[in-house]
Amino acid sequence: VKPYYYHCFNCHTQFSASEIEQDRHYLCPKCGKPEKNKPLHGALLISFDYQQLKKRYNRPFFLKQPAGQIWRYPLLWPLQPPEYAKDPPFQKIEWKELFSVDLPATKIHEIRVDTHTVKLLDETNNPTYSYKDRASTLVALKARQLGLTAVSTASTGNAASSMAGICARFGLEAHLWVPENIPEAKLMQILAYGGQVHLVRGDYDTAFDLSLEISQRMGWYNRNTAYNPLTMEGKKSGAFDIFIGLRGDLPDYIFVPVGDGVVIGGIYKGFCELQHLGVIEDYPKLIAVQSSGSNALIRFMQTGKFEYLPAETIADSISAGAPRNLYFAANSVRESGGFALEVDDADIVKSQKLINERTGILVEPAGAASLAGYIKAKSEGKIDPDKKSMILLTGSGLKDIDSLKRLHRRPDAFRAEVWQERYVGE
Amino acid sequence: VKPYYYHCFNCHTQFSASEIEQDRHYLCPKCGKPEKNKPLHGALLISFDYQQLKKRYNRPFFLKQPAGQIWRYPLLWPLQPPEYAKDPPFQKIEWKELFSVDLPATKIHEIRVDTHTVKLLDETNNPTYSYKDRASTLVALKARQLGLTAVSTASTGNAASSMAGICARFGLEAHLWVPENIPEAKLMQILAYGGQVHLVRGDYDTAFDLSLEISQRMGWYNRNTAYNPLTMEGKKSGAFDIFIGLRGDLPDYIFVPVGDGVVIGGIYKGFCELQHLGVIEDYPKLIAVQSSGSNALIRFMQTGKFEYLPAETIADSISAGAPRNLYFAANSVRESGGFALEVDDADIVKSQKLINERTGILVEPAGAASLAGYIKAKSEGKIDPDKKSMILLTGSGLKDIDSLKRLHRRPDAFRAEVWQERYVGE
Repeated sequence: VKPYYYHCFNCHTQFSASEIEQDRHYLCPKCGKPEKNKPLHGALLISFDYQQLKKRYNRPFFLKQPAGQIWRYPLLWPLQPPEYAKDPPFQKIEWKELFSVDLPATKIHEIRVDTHTVKLLDETNNPTYSYKDRASTLVALKARQLGLTAVSTASTGNAASSMAGICARFGLEAHLWVPENIPEAKLMQILAYGGQVHLVRGDYDTAFDLSLEISQRMGWYNRNTAYNPLTMEGKKSGAFDIFIGLRGDLPDYIFVPVGDGVVIGGIYKGFCELQHLGVIEDYPKLIAVQSSGSNALIRFMQTGKFEYLPAETIADSISAGAPRNLYFAANSVRESGGFALEVDDADIVKSQKLINERTGILVEPAGAASLAGYIKAKSEGKIDPDKKSMILLTGSGLKDIDSLKRLHRRPDAFRAEVWQERYVGE
Repeated sequence: VKPYYYHCFNCHTQFSASEIEQDRHYLCPKCGKPEKNKPLHGALLISFDYQQLKKRYNRPFFLKQPAGQIWRYPLLWPLQPPEYAKDPPFQKIEWKELFSVDLPATKIHEIRVDTHTVKLLDETNNPTYSYKDRASTLVALKARQLGLTAVSTASTGNAASSMAGICARFGLEAHLWVPENIPEAKLMQILAYGGQVHLVRGDYDTAFDLSLEISQRMGWYNRNTAYNPLTMEGKKSGAFDIFIGLRGDLPDYIFVPVGDGVVIGGIYKGFCELQHLGVIEDYPKLIAVQSSGSNALIRFMQTGKFEYLPAETIADSISAGAPRNLYFAANSVRESGGFALEVDDADIVKSQKLINERTGILVEPAGAASLAGYIKAKSEGKIDPDKKSMILLTGSGLKDIDSLKRLHRRPDAFRAEVWQERYVGE
């Protein structure tokens, strides 16, 4: 029985679950090596026996599923008892337990932009209010399966608050490495969940490198995005929920905000799996949207070379000078027939306001970059506006009150008498 | 055809939908009159033809429903075409539109407190992150049905941010009357949705009275809680979702944070309707939890008399010196066989921490008052601890970052070198 296996994105070597998981590898044991301020070389991917699984997980099966209940297809997650399952400290995950960590049934909404309607995948009502929960729940389940009690992650804020919240739910200890300029609401959210915050004087890339070193030293299970293969696995669930939420009527374009490149990579992988399973024939073109202050993927796709530049953008969740999942993300964009484009912070802020005011969905700046990308791509004629577009709203605006404060002035307060005069007195 | 009718809680006079809705009454046309800093006299209730409805909405029907999809039983909401439906400016509400404003399928979680397990109704992932969305969606639908384009409400913060968000979704104008000490995150949330904020130099009670006067003058549809009968109607949906979420296995006690008393009244009304429909035989005992700084209901239930005292509590969402729904709330507690009890702000804060850290659900102080109430009731022997208890978590902690800041200190930031020395260097 080979329920799932790992393989290296770069050298293509295959590994069994026990080789990777029991020995606590994250990158390819042969060619992987994390380097300071660089995309990861030797990231591992997980594959399943799609020929077997397609008998069970076919198109009618997915069309019957409710969105968000991702554990209803347990064999598509790397949680099935692997070949080392009989050895301690391996712990069995009960399906009942899985069902208790479902995501809410994500709603797909719409927004009217000029004369066109765009679909929204709204992730702002997830358990900790961002897309990251899709990865964090899978990582927490794996930590428990491996008998580990502490999880560690570097983050600009969302991944950390997500991991802290999910760890609280699972009774795990959480260590979070975040840059000191983390938005205050996200910091407070982490602290409220009881997470151990390690505030780093430096940027996300510094926190990333540092956390790897110390997690390993301390024996904490590492959830760094892209580094831990389960992060992309968890994030592939977005593709399944898009298929389910749209009852199979997929969009032609999906606009995805890109920082480290794991969300876009995950969504691409999810669609590939749906294709392997015979559920869909073609998948949507994925369009990577970056802030012009954090555009490493765009530069890489133009030049074929990675060059490190410190990132600076109001959209903290997609601020990454060295996107760790760069190679797979670029591949995802290319293979899907999409492209990458950058938007200014000013456009991101404008789109954020548009979404908040037109849909009643409160998004953070990074979550609105996707709409800014759609508007730009449309105005530049890079997409066919009459084809179906969807954008991802990846995190809640309540997590970054400071960015709202830049947009909105606190109104003056008046005494009742003044109001009465103003409205009634005339 | 009499799809639903209104009747006065105090003088029991019945009114048709057209008498109340077309003439824009909120309180009983015969005996209702809002008074400054006083509970409302002449609040209107809505009743349906339960004898007819029970043929359709029976126990097996509710057991088949998914939680949160409250429009699947459309005849239990005062939105069915009433007798005046042919007259303009009445607008038809399409069922399709209703389905687009579903609440997320509320999850029922558990928390372990000492040796007992308590169920949680988690409302922190609603569209605008609080229980109030249940009322606001119904109010917005009614505004649209009446052909109105602006809605107005007084609020300590949650009702206003909820109404602003839901109005954004429906393309309605929102006017929000809030005390100037409103938590900053809630203020920013309202502004982000494009709501018109009227900041009042005074407390919630002042904002309440003022908003009534000015809404009427301006012709805005008023959503003031308890004043607009649809607020309690919307909030009754919590009872249906509790029944559905627990597959009919209702708790013996439900602890509800009480400010104006509309949530507890709504839940009571929901359970009464389930009883009228023959879905349940008995309903849970409802236990009203108030902060000792805002305990008007408790004093009223002890003395039989209402006395106005300005409210002051960290739990802003249940801060109300003059609970507008006082009489119905007291009735709900009494009729259900429950009781009211008060908890200190310090206990609320302790419970907030407990919930955040043990469940990964971020709650605001008011949302945690219910747990503080459970702990106190148990320690004082007021409930049988072996019977089933449930608590309501009414709003997200992200909406009140300031209260988290009082709990958690920002940690010091260190340079990478320092971390490395600390953990690795030895």
